[in-house]
Amino acid sequence: MKITKPTFVIDASICKNNIHRMAEKAQNNKVQFRPHFKTHQSAEIAGWFRNEGVGTITVSSLEMAKYFAGYGWKDILVAFPVNILEIESINQLALEIKLSLTVESDYSVLTLLSGLKHSVGLYIKIDTGYHRTGIDYNNFNEIEKILRLIRQTKKLEFIGFLTHSGHTYQSKNVDEIQGIYQDSVDKLNQLKLKFINEFPDLILSIGDTPSCSIIENFDGVDEIRPGNFVFFDVMQYQLGSCDFNDIGVSVVCPVVAKHAGRNEIVIYGGAVHLSKEKLISKIGEDYFGLVSLFKGDKWIKPLTDTFVKSLSQEHGIIKTTEKVFSKIEIGSLLAVIPVHACLAADLARDYKSTGGSVIHKFKC
Amino acid sequence: MKITKPTFVIDASICKNNIHRMAEKAQNNKVQFRPHFKTHQSAEIAGWFRNEGVGTITVSSLEMAKYFAGYGWKDILVAFPVNILEIESINQLALEIKLSLTVESDYSVLTLLSGLKHSVGLYIKIDTGYHRTGIDYNNFNEIEKILRLIRQTKKLEFIGFLTHSGHTYQSKNVDEIQGIYQDSVDKLNQLKLKFINEFPDLILSIGDTPSCSIIENFDGVDEIRPGNFVFFDVMQYQLGSCDFNDIGVSVVCPVVAKHAGRNEIVIYGGAVHLSKEKLISKIGEDYFGLVSLFKGDKWIKPLTDTFVKSLSQEHGIIKTTEKVFSKIEIGSLLAVIPVHACLAADLARDYKSTGGSVIHKFKC
Repeated sequence: MKITKPTFVIDASICKNNIHRMAEKAQNNKVQFRPHFKTHQSAEIAGWFRNEGVGTITVSSLEMAKYFAGYGWKDILVAFPVNILEIESINQLALEIKLSLTVESDYSVLTLLSGLKHSVGLYIKIDTGYHRTGIDYNNFNEIEKILRLIRQTKKLEFIGFLTHSGHTYQSKNVDEIQGIYQDSVDKLNQLKLKFINEFPDLILSIGDTPSCSIIENFDGVDEIRPGNFVFFDVMQYQLGSCDFNDIGVSVVCPVVAKHAGRNEIVIYGGAVHLSKEKLISKIGEDYFGLVSLFKGDKWIKPLTDTFVKSLSQEHGIIKTTEKVFSKIEIGSLLAVIPVHACLAADLARDYKSTGGSVIHKFKC
Repeated sequence: MKITKPTFVIDASICKNNIHRMAEKAQNNKVQFRPHFKTHQSAEIAGWFRNEGVGTITVSSLEMAKYFAGYGWKDILVAFPVNILEIESINQLALEIKLSLTVESDYSVLTLLSGLKHSVGLYIKIDTGYHRTGIDYNNFNEIEKILRLIRQTKKLEFIGFLTHSGHTYQSKNVDEIQGIYQDSVDKLNQLKLKFINEFPDLILSIGDTPSCSIIENFDGVDEIRPGNFVFFDVMQYQLGSCDFNDIGVSVVCPVVAKHAGRNEIVIYGGAVHLSKEKLISKIGEDYFGLVSLFKGDKWIKPLTDTFVKSLSQEHGIIKTTEKVFSKIEIGSLLAVIPVHACLAADLARDYKSTGGSVIHKFKC
């Protein structure tokens, strides 16, 4: 494969394995699998999910929903607080597919109802502790306000309660992730218990990749919506959600300069290719990616004590050891394993497979 | 203007003023003005520079050079360590326009020469203290190695020494920026003194927007290459490079949810619209943008004690006061003034002017 500039490279076999494992786990647990497609944003990768029997998906914008609807996906949840300014897109999609939306206030539901022409599914977003969005799990009053509106119309079908326990990303170890997962599920089940009589079909839907990767038994959950797991990345690896070998993507970058005095390597590959998402190393330094050799169109294990220490718009600065430094030449390629694959993928115009073919994606 | 989703909005009159001021300053100082177009990446905005008499430009990739060459720009510097893997693009461009490249090692020059078919201009990148790229200003030995190669060929025209004092971005006040600027210019002039007899036309070229905005007298400098100043942003405002009223861009975002208990507003506008570039507030909190009302298709001054406190892929969380919170409604629009306009601009598919027209841009 000829690479001359920063390129988002996908190892399809790793990603297909990741999909297969998660699909199988969902099936074994008899939970609905509704993977989040915001990570890859690609109709071709979506096909890998379809091959595993997936028919229901999650996206984070109406534009993404339109894109996948155009490729034959018929049951799409937009897991983002409904943006009532896009009512035209909502009506168009609701006519074509089974569209589900996410709400977290009666105000939004009221405004939605004033413009809605066709029926949509409705998830109520619940905050089980992340405190980004959602109604507090024990705020029955607010939930009841929404349910009151739902009862009055045939345009809204109440699907259930949805949460995203994003606070798993702050966990220090797998035990903490398990603890957060269990706490979220317990809280959601209190809600279910309260409303199941009136809505016997209501489901509980959970999201985050750390929980979905680590937990084996989904008792008390009806639907899972992980997204990142298809690619995985350094963040997930550090959290314990995956092995390094499960990471299916890297950004392959040309080496353009070397600075022997400080064992630094300059790559063509910057914030516009990797994003400025960063992690903090064990010794307290910021880093923006791990680094591997790229040989035979593959990356292997990360180079010892080597990391992306800073990013400008197009520059990446890799800090390494004297030993590694001496082996890397200007004009060679390095594979940067991104900290956050979703953001790096979003930045790419399209992807390349390790086999060299182009994998097209949506670009909003 | 109808905005229904996150939109990068440009106030053309502010940007044109920013361009005019810088062009005038360059003219008054009799320095060559070679603005960096990586900030806007737009042929239409490039036209605003042409109207000020600009004919020489800087870009950060060969792809950007190709894009602007396609719009009639004939003298383009790629201010990035030459990527020898893109020798085909170099040869193609060198045939069409006056192309200049940046080098910082004899190794790169040697490899470049082995594939180069047409003549190009060459800047030697000098490190005056930023320590990202470049040869140390006093490492005559390394510089001499490059010059030795240049003397042996007609394909390389030595233009001069180029630096980017990116360490101005770490300055705490305008005095520090002035100090770094003067230090860089002094170091470059030591080099000029050493080589001017042999290369009487060699120039000294400086880059960063903080220096170029704050300094009024460019004695000792032959060329300036600022980029960000066309838009400005919160980072430049905080550094003292501009007034708030000089900031010509914002990302206009729909409000999708509100959380009264913590005075937080959720917008449709996340890391894929603003980038994760952040600053630290006076009270030590990370923030990803300031926030203004968006009325009559304009933003005014930033809302008091209001800032973007966190970003997910599509979510932005705004922290504000009780008073401001009570005035913002779901379904309204807020203008987020980005921390780093270059990265936010890069993320946009295209821009909108405050007048409502689309401003097309390059998307690599």
